[in-house]
Amino acid sequence: MNNYILKNENAIYYECGYSCDNVIFIKLFNDAYFITDARYTTEAKAQVKGAQVIQASNLILEAKSLLQKSKIKKIVFDGNDFNYNTYNNLTSDLKITFINKTSFSQRKRMIKSDDEIKILKKAAKLGRKGLKHFANYLQNNGLDKSELYLNFKAVEYMSQQGLLALSFNPIVAINDNAAKPHARPTSKALSKKDLLLVDAGVKYKRYCSDRTCVTSADFDDFHFKREQSFKNKKQQKIYDIVLKAQLNAINKTRSGMKASQIDNLTRSIIEKAGYGKYFIHSTGHGVGLDIHEYPFINAKSDITIEDNMVFTIEPGIYLENEFGVRIEDTVVMKNGRAVIL
Amino acid sequence: MNNYILKNENAIYYECGYSCDNVIFIKLFNDAYFITDARYTTEAKAQVKGAQVIQASNLILEAKSLLQKSKIKKIVFDGNDFNYNTYNNLTSDLKITFINKTSFSQRKRMIKSDDEIKILKKAAKLGRKGLKHFANYLQNNGLDKSELYLNFKAVEYMSQQGLLALSFNPIVAINDNAAKPHARPTSKALSKKDLLLVDAGVKYKRYCSDRTCVTSADFDDFHFKREQSFKNKKQQKIYDIVLKAQLNAINKTRSGMKASQIDNLTRSIIEKAGYGKYFIHSTGHGVGLDIHEYPFINAKSDITIEDNMVFTIEPGIYLENEFGVRIEDTVVMKNGRAVIL
Repeated sequence: MNNYILKNENAIYYECGYSCDNVIFIKLFNDAYFITDARYTTEAKAQVKGAQVIQASNLILEAKSLLQKSKIKKIVFDGNDFNYNTYNNLTSDLKITFINKTSFSQRKRMIKSDDEIKILKKAAKLGRKGLKHFANYLQNNGLDKSELYLNFKAVEYMSQQGLLALSFNPIVAINDNAAKPHARPTSKALSKKDLLLVDAGVKYKRYCSDRTCVTSADFDDFHFKREQSFKNKKQQKIYDIVLKAQLNAINKTRSGMKASQIDNLTRSIIEKAGYGKYFIHSTGHGVGLDIHEYPFINAKSDITIEDNMVFTIEPGIYLENEFGVRIEDTVVMKNGRAVIL
Repeated sequence: MNNYILKNENAIYYECGYSCDNVIFIKLFNDAYFITDARYTTEAKAQVKGAQVIQASNLILEAKSLLQKSKIKKIVFDGNDFNYNTYNNLTSDLKITFINKTSFSQRKRMIKSDDEIKILKKAAKLGRKGLKHFANYLQNNGLDKSELYLNFKAVEYMSQQGLLALSFNPIVAINDNAAKPHARPTSKALSKKDLLLVDAGVKYKRYCSDRTCVTSADFDDFHFKREQSFKNKKQQKIYDIVLKAQLNAINKTRSGMKASQIDNLTRSIIEKAGYGKYFIHSTGHGVGLDIHEYPFINAKSDITIEDNMVFTIEPGIYLENEFGVRIEDTVVMKNGRAVIL
């Protein structure tokens, strides 16, 4: 692809190693342009690699004049990246064909470089460290604290008190709230032997980590390890099914498989156990600069999995008004197999 | 306006008292429809007022079928609210004219109801409370702490440890970092007599507060009141000019004025003092469900200010590599005058 135009912050970071919340990036054959406003030009000039930084008060007008001068006949854009007004302002009066290739940047970023994998590994390590410190906090101080307060403490420990950005707002859900895949925290308080679900991740050099753990609140030994023992027998049964489904996918995923086959590696186990209709989402999603990106691991995806792809494996069972279990790790494909980051 | 379609979360909340991050709202004469997915229908059915909740896995297809059945000929949308792909998917094969009225929801929301003003007052009160607690923390523990850490503590005190959502990520900037209107926190540490700028707000019932204070770090008496004394004479001079500009606008703003006239009430004072070119942004913006909404208070805006409008007055002077001062309050127009919320 010779010519393209981008607005998405992460897509642009991938192109030139710097980004901000008001920028248009244009690639024209061997030249690239980073158009931004006065607030960002100093930083941009110091950090942008392989593109010329242009300061403008009206980014769209600047982009149009640049495209006009270039004499190109067509340019690729992503129809999810431009709103209706921006697209119209950009394309009006230009004799250039705009070709819509949805998600072309995410598709390009699907196979990670070794450097990116190193960064993602470090992000995963920092994410695990945050969860460990959070577990330690919970053991000593978590009893009777509300989901709202625990959510705040999850932010504190995951972010190392503000040093790291988070991949997303953590989920901290107790018992029946864990049955809602997108639960918002409530004033419900944590008691002994409650089922607790924590889904959280951090960013390192803009790359995301993502992990979900479920535990039985044990104030003598609070931890987010895979081996969990629940007092409630039904919770134990469901946890074991989800864990079996997750391990089946981690162990049997191979480069060359379709993403839909990986989805089936978790789903078939849960279906066989009789809980298929309670696994209400897909098996996973790619992780990189975006927390949700290609490859998406679902029943309909025919993307072929290759080495150096990074994605989550996160089966779940959600029993409304009772509890929910989701176990999630982020894996990288190495030598044909899935390795937990 | 009889028929319109919305995707924006706050615009939809305004229509029916509930919203979520995956919804299309359609108003057709006296009927209204809230189309969302299975994750949100239970909550939506309990909380949506005056609209029928429809559960769908593909919101766009559901909206299209509803529009088709309605036999309407035209419908209003906001071109900033739909991306290029969504707009195309929605409109293809439909014999309905889509009329682009940019920001029509924000314009409708410009004059607040008395109930909304009560909520905004409460938000402002909670915001002031947060800043007071943060000042108290700073007095006892702020010395030598980094901007990054203080940013985290600002989130802690403003949010009341996670109880309240924030209007935006707070800005905590020391000396020359305060000269960047959109500074990101660094590892720079707070010392005695440093100039400290804090810009922060909270949400109450989804409505925002917004306030900016500048203080001289005084560990015997740390406060964010208007009266500030700086050891550095230039800081004091600039602070006094900005304060004079802000008070001039607060005292002289009247219902019936154009927004551009209010902009001039701050700008003229700063220009007269010789710092016009260092006041690099507009005087203010409306505050409501969105942190930035109508009316925008700038030199080009010919919106007529009316009672029950709510907006910020926030002049600033930014001296690169030295320091910056911005003083911001949110006001409501009452009986023809601006009253600080």
